Amino acid sequence: MSEFPATKLTKINRIPERGSYERAVIYPIIDEALICHVGFEVDGQPIIIPTIHARLDDMLYLHGAKASRMLKHIAVGHPVCVAFTLLDGIIFARSLFEHSLRYRSVVAFGSGGLLENAEEKLAALRVISEHVWPGRWQEARLPNAKELDATSIAAVQITKASAKVQDGFPTDAVGDLALPVWAGVIPIQFQAGEPIPDPQLPAGLPFPEYLKRNPR
Amino acid sequence: MSEFPATKLTKINRIPERGSYERAVIYPIIDEALICHVGFEVDGQPIIIPTIHARLDDMLYLHGAKASRMLKHIAVGHPVCVAFTLLDGIIFARSLFEHSLRYRSVVAFGSGGLLENAEEKLAALRVISEHVWPGRWQEARLPNAKELDATSIAAVQITKASAKVQDGFPTDAVGDLALPVWAGVIPIQFQAGEPIPDPQLPAGLPFPEYLKRNPR
Repeated sequence: MSEFPATKLTKINRIPERGSYERAVIYPIIDEALICHVGFEVDGQPIIIPTIHARLDDMLYLHGAKASRMLKHIAVGHPVCVAFTLLDGIIFARSLFEHSLRYRSVVAFGSGGLLENAEEKLAALRVISEHVWPGRWQEARLPNAKELDATSIAAVQITKASAKVQDGFPTDAVGDLALPVWAGVIPIQFQAGEPIPDPQLPAGLPFPEYLKRNPR
Repeated sequence: MSEFPATKLTKINRIPERGSYERAVIYPIIDEALICHVGFEVDGQPIIIPTIHARLDDMLYLHGAKASRMLKHIAVGHPVCVAFTLLDGIIFARSLFEHSLRYRSVVAFGSGGLLENAEEKLAALRVISEHVWPGRWQEARLPNAKELDATSIAAVQITKASAKVQDGFPTDAVGDLALPVWAGVIPIQFQAGEPIPDPQLPAGLPFPEYLKRNPR
């Protein structure tokens, strides 16, 4: 897989060795993230909306209600910034200054428009559904024409993106290493808990196998 | 505690009963979030940066390197949007259409400037440090003058904010309730794992008590 161009907008200036423009680094971060944050601008005012996404090559699918301000904004071709952030741990250094987080993050830029065709929309919803939890598409009742019509789906072409990854240990100055301060990493894990059945679920309906396999 | 004004920018139009403008709802979400996403706009281009934050009343503190584009942008008074998102679970409905997430999110708007005074900067760093992990400020070596000078800290006054909370179960139509599809919630937990000592940590240095108390 190739690289995105390192433009002024995406260049990692601070600690550049943690940055990457490679799709091989960027794609897995986007795909592991359950949600993203979409940034857009209306009359000079920046706005951020957290939302579910899914990716197919350089194309990002975002969905929502027909009335969504964000989707209407994308519909007319305005640029968006989309951030994907995975937190992996807290880095405790001897010096406060060297404290940090372990993370994998991507900031992507692009623009796009809305899918108009019902078949395209259904295909994109399938990509989104499989992103959230593989297998669910096979079990759920799929959207009918009315539901599909009530749903807007944007396809955003990513044209620029960079990743930043911090997976190390504290980088205290040599002079601080002997301080009697605990240093290291407390990992952060994003875990699936015990499923809670819907109170209205008919008795005896089994918990399906594919829902036991946490995709993250 | 009072409410933020429900302005055009922050009004929850989609399922308004999930929205709130109350500080009593908004503050705890901001405080539980380890990081936030800061949105700003440069020449019509929206940009998002994930970063650590801390809150004191309606004031939000963001810190970074002196060269940070985001902090330089805030320094000259430009407006920012800051999003705080806590994911609590995945809601599996019978119909694909009713699938959703359990979440608590805040979108806040404001502007501010940089702290100039070393004493103010140190006080803000303490608020940030206590936000990430209470107690760490007491153990770590605090910033010296050079480190403090290399750190920029923005104070952003939140003037508008709204929260949206989804903590329910699937809301399938009555006609879908009898479908043989498992429905319910798989909770998501943000858990601290086993601490990993820094490879350079002197032998015998104990793991401190306060680091055993996960603040989230």
